[in-house]
Amino acid sequence: MPHAAPAELPASITRRARAGRTAMQARRGASSGRDANPLHVPYITRGIPTHDLLSDEALDGIIATADRILAEIGIEFREDPETVRLFQQAGGKARDLGDDRWNLTFEPGLIRGLLATAPAEFTQHARNPARSVRIGGRSMVFAPAYGSPFVMDLDKGRRYGTIEDFRNLVKLAQSSPWLHHSGGTICEPTDVPVNKRHLDMVHAHIRYSDRAFLGSITAPERAEDSIEMCRILFGADFVDRNCVIMGNFNSTSPLVWDGVSTRGIRAYAAANQGSIHLPFLLGGAVSPLTMPGAIAQCLAESMVGCALTQLVRPGAPAILGSFLSSMSLRTGSPTFGTPEPALGSLVMGQIARRLNMPLRCAGNFSTSKLPDAQAMTQSMMSMMSAVNCGANFILHSAGFLDGLLSMSYEKMMLDMDLCGALHAWLRGLEVNEDTLAFEALAEKGPGEHLFGCAHTLRHYQTAYWDSALDDNDTHETWSEAGGVDAMTRANRAWKETLATYEAPPLDPAIDGALCDFIARRKAAMPDAWY
Amino acid sequence: MPHAAPAELPASITRRARAGRTAMQARRGASSGRDANPLHVPYITRGIPTHDLLSDEALDGIIATADRILAEIGIEFREDPETVRLFQQAGGKARDLGDDRWNLTFEPGLIRGLLATAPAEFTQHARNPARSVRIGGRSMVFAPAYGSPFVMDLDKGRRYGTIEDFRNLVKLAQSSPWLHHSGGTICEPTDVPVNKRHLDMVHAHIRYSDRAFLGSITAPERAEDSIEMCRILFGADFVDRNCVIMGNFNSTSPLVWDGVSTRGIRAYAAANQGSIHLPFLLGGAVSPLTMPGAIAQCLAESMVGCALTQLVRPGAPAILGSFLSSMSLRTGSPTFGTPEPALGSLVMGQIARRLNMPLRCAGNFSTSKLPDAQAMTQSMMSMMSAVNCGANFILHSAGFLDGLLSMSYEKMMLDMDLCGALHAWLRGLEVNEDTLAFEALAEKGPGEHLFGCAHTLRHYQTAYWDSALDDNDTHETWSEAGGVDAMTRANRAWKETLATYEAPPLDPAIDGALCDFIARRKAAMPDAWY
Repeated sequence: MPHAAPAELPASITRRARAGRTAMQARRGASSGRDANPLHVPYITRGIPTHDLLSDEALDGIIATADRILAEIGIEFREDPETVRLFQQAGGKARDLGDDRWNLTFEPGLIRGLLATAPAEFTQHARNPARSVRIGGRSMVFAPAYGSPFVMDLDKGRRYGTIEDFRNLVKLAQSSPWLHHSGGTICEPTDVPVNKRHLDMVHAHIRYSDRAFLGSITAPERAEDSIEMCRILFGADFVDRNCVIMGNFNSTSPLVWDGVSTRGIRAYAAANQGSIHLPFLLGGAVSPLTMPGAIAQCLAESMVGCALTQLVRPGAPAILGSFLSSMSLRTGSPTFGTPEPALGSLVMGQIARRLNMPLRCAGNFSTSKLPDAQAMTQSMMSMMSAVNCGANFILHSAGFLDGLLSMSYEKMMLDMDLCGALHAWLRGLEVNEDTLAFEALAEKGPGEHLFGCAHTLRHYQTAYWDSALDDNDTHETWSEAGGVDAMTRANRAWKETLATYEAPPLDPAIDGALCDFIARRKAAMPDAWY
Repeated sequence: MPHAAPAELPASITRRARAGRTAMQARRGASSGRDANPLHVPYITRGIPTHDLLSDEALDGIIATADRILAEIGIEFREDPETVRLFQQAGGKARDLGDDRWNLTFEPGLIRGLLATAPAEFTQHARNPARSVRIGGRSMVFAPAYGSPFVMDLDKGRRYGTIEDFRNLVKLAQSSPWLHHSGGTICEPTDVPVNKRHLDMVHAHIRYSDRAFLGSITAPERAEDSIEMCRILFGADFVDRNCVIMGNFNSTSPLVWDGVSTRGIRAYAAANQGSIHLPFLLGGAVSPLTMPGAIAQCLAESMVGCALTQLVRPGAPAILGSFLSSMSLRTGSPTFGTPEPALGSLVMGQIARRLNMPLRCAGNFSTSKLPDAQAMTQSMMSMMSAVNCGANFILHSAGFLDGLLSMSYEKMMLDMDLCGALHAWLRGLEVNEDTLAFEALAEKGPGEHLFGCAHTLRHYQTAYWDSALDDNDTHETWSEAGGVDAMTRANRAWKETLATYEAPPLDPAIDGALCDFIARRKAAMPDAWY
């Protein structure tokens, strides 16, 4: 029996495809000196419309509910009287709950009004100016996953992350053209004392990446250290005038902002640095199970965090955050990459545009324990909603597995490759006489293939996203080459990437000053593991 | 070191989630007699807006290019003078090319005008009336993949498909609530002679499924046999008045319709049955590399196929088809699940709505040889564009691997599970006082979890899509249970499904009549293998 083509795919196409590549390859050889990949950009400027889910009326309902939550239920603040004072001064009504806790309510629209001075868009500067990113508007920035205590790879399985893993993961991110930002706690370096690891983390971002990054938020003094290291890197004046570092702050949902977060937010804002204000909403546990309610709560909590920045320093960059997740109703386990939170992301995009605020939203989420089919189905559900909602900053763009408990070396490679595809997706389609290609069909007419036509030769190098990790060979070729799956290819790819990694140049005087600062700070305090 | 939660996910959430399930599970036990899953539907009625990519002006440009292709380059027809006569009679200008070949040109708008009598929506009846599907408008129908010569599973690897595989795959499809249609050539049953396999295929769809299905298109007499079997099943009068079977026809791109297809199209249309008109466009091979040009060509070819049905029998159901694919520019291999064709799907959705025609578009495409991370990344890129463009009939919703050369048992299970998630996605979000859930947060206030609140107990059974295949357990539980990946779970799932499969009831008299017909037809011709 001959090697049959599927009923829908004439065998002649496959045969002709293989013949046709000769002409293309010959031409490719002749033009090796051409420009770099046009998809390589320091950040994406979205070229496609957003996918808007709700009517204006439905959005009104959600925003009104957020206002009502703030006016009638209020937000609880803990262990930060200065933040309470700032909000009282701005019109909030405080009720002292004792134990360093206050409930504040805000009349409808008050908090939204405070956001008027927050920038709709801003630049976060990288130490390599060509890598600075724009955050807001039609811009989109991909950053690796954040905050996992474990790392995993196919060779060694799951174990606690170390500073060596941290550095490896920063190097992998830096090596990919498809991320734009070095992220923050790319994994927890659990072999470094808790009160000192932020110094090594920020140093790793500066040394092994030339992209923008996030600083520490686990204690106000660690936030200050992170910003101080940027002053060494960029100069104090530059830092006072420009955003060079950001902190990613979580509310304590439902409806609480604790003092560690609010004091950290105040530290970043006072230094004119950026901050992300992220409720981590697990539906049914810390937020309503129904998405409209979860979104209203998210909005209430996140707007309050953003508003605090403006009370500290009007004009400081602030990012609205959304992390909507769900729960397995059979087992009570948190779930990620499910459709309902993905729909919620579309709504958050609409609301952020209404508020004229930059949005951090979703990412390549998964609960899978391996970089397998489940991992990418869930990731795609979540990530496509992030890019289609027009999110501006997508933390967790690469590496996320195990419900965020583990950072996977292989998933990181797979996700970064996907991020490349999303560059092509977000570019969209240009419709003009050239792309309408009447000439391509007219050149030879019905029944004749288009391999050699002028239009094809002009476009074949840039027409399609071509994954570096996917296998598109015939089954025979794939099988002869060992018949490996995508996670095995990803395993090989991260090892090859680390083996050939070269650090971007860094002024030795600056690195010396950073090392001195770190040594001084480490010497000034005993190790602490909490 | 304690089992740490990620920085973004407070450990307390996970602990509380596990405590909270007790209350939910107790309640679930008390309501076991409740209604079936509200997501179980005979077909989807899209509850979310489409994701529209292009401006009206850009769409005008594409439609005008399709018109120009038809007017200035024309379509070549082969070996079917009756079709040429019908188009000439309708205003087409024919040029005899010799060898039973004709070039026909159509003045701009002529072909589109012929589509005016085609129904914007129609019902394809299933033998179980509760399974009949609506095609067009806001309806969406998922059908399994179509046309692979090979099948594969993890135990036996890749081999040619057999009639046993065909039956197994029909049974798997029938067993899933997330498909709506039994499809057609779910794999090629290569152990049955080519000129007789359509009889066994149609019989398998009737016997092992109670859903609607597709008939043969590989020869006009096989199309007639398929329709005749439906007359036995539904009665001749019913068939003449209603769509009960459809044929899926490919043009021979670029810009050719051959006589096997056009005579088949005429057979289905004459019997008032449906037909899909599908250009299989591999960019750079049989269509321009640039998507706007490929879409214009797709439109020209597909509209001509649809128009033919209306010349044969005005009002016969016809479906516009789009299968846009790409090519690896490094190797010349066809690629599937890339972003550019996915963008093209969004445009095809817009155009189909302009033309007021039902659309078949995309599916769970992949070139991977295994149901792995690559398979689902590519599938999701393609499938999300199909559902978000508002396609009405999505063939290839489950099982597609290996660039459509292989139907995978495991991929079929994974894709069907994904189709379940897409039911939740396409339902969208309802915004009302109940879903805005102010009461849920007000009940206990800031800092208190929502497990026990009335709103949670009212919604927890239906709030979230809960995959039957995904693993959402802790790493420890997953690991203790064997630590298997998604494809291994899918392998177990298809075996369990086949082991517990029960055929839907079928009147023995009807099955007897079908068996007689098949025996008569098989006896009437010698085996042929082409």
